[in-house]
Amino acid sequence: MATYTHLLLATDFMPEAEQLGARARELAHGFGARLSLVHVLEPSVLAPPYEMMPSLPDGTEQALEEAAQQALDRLGEQLEVPSVSRHLLYGSVRRAVADFVTDHQVDLVLVGSHGRHGVERLLGSTASAILQAAPCDVLALRLDGQGGD
Amino acid sequence: MATYTHLLLATDFMPEAEQLGARARELAHGFGARLSLVHVLEPSVLAPPYEMMPSLPDGTEQALEEAAQQALDRLGEQLEVPSVSRHLLYGSVRRAVADFVTDHQVDLVLVGSHGRHGVERLLGSTASAILQAAPCDVLALRLDGQGGD
Repeated sequence: MATYTHLLLATDFMPEAEQLGARARELAHGFGARLSLVHVLEPSVLAPPYEMMPSLPDGTEQALEEAAQQALDRLGEQLEVPSVSRHLLYGSVRRAVADFVTDHQVDLVLVGSHGRHGVERLLGSTASAILQAAPCDVLALRLDGQGGD
Repeated sequence: MATYTHLLLATDFMPEAEQLGARARELAHGFGARLSLVHVLEPSVLAPPYEMMPSLPDGTEQALEEAAQQALDRLGEQLEVPSVSRHLLYGSVRRAVADFVTDHQVDLVLVGSHGRHGVERLLGSTASAILQAAPCDVLALRLDGQGGD
């Protein structure tokens, strides 16, 4: 395999998501590859593990899901990723992404890196978990206006 | 920029170097990009900072340099990287690679990841330092026979 056929961008809708999405689209185009978008809803959001934590008000879970789906669709439309390639996943980021990679023959996962310390400061815990767990190549994209050390 | 024009593989001559080199060559070919090889001789090897440390025997430094240059040339020949694109650098890995990237307009640095925990277990400190410091995109290549979690 000289280059890649199926790229995956896992997005957490951070402010940088659009810039990252634009680079992902460019790369997919350059490789002649498919691009999938996923967003992972972690169980900690939906069901806090501590009994002492107050329960989420009724409907919160559904509202979170709907908001995530809308954000995913908005990004997908911007990037011209068809709805069949936009996925809302549930579970831990590392497990959900690793499973998705295996189930959908993804061969390159894209994450963003920024700040003066490269991947030491990634786009939140999502990117970090992915770098650790993805069973395929991972490309850390340096975002604009962020030099090295 | 849709894909990449100048790839850099920083090698520490680990057993995986050949496999990593083959993937680097494939990718460079796929991108129509130039491939440079560097090996960094860190000052800790050449000049231990502790006064209590015994001095290296005369000629050790030169012998290390010659051995590194030979290993670099051997890998370069295997990968058909011309000698003008093989570089022996001096200093800390992070600084040497970051400077090289800037000075030579490298746009993608390649490192290897392996083991069950992705970049948590990289090819030694070289790859780890590079991931932290490179002022450009970094591609972590998953080596063969190494699945995810």
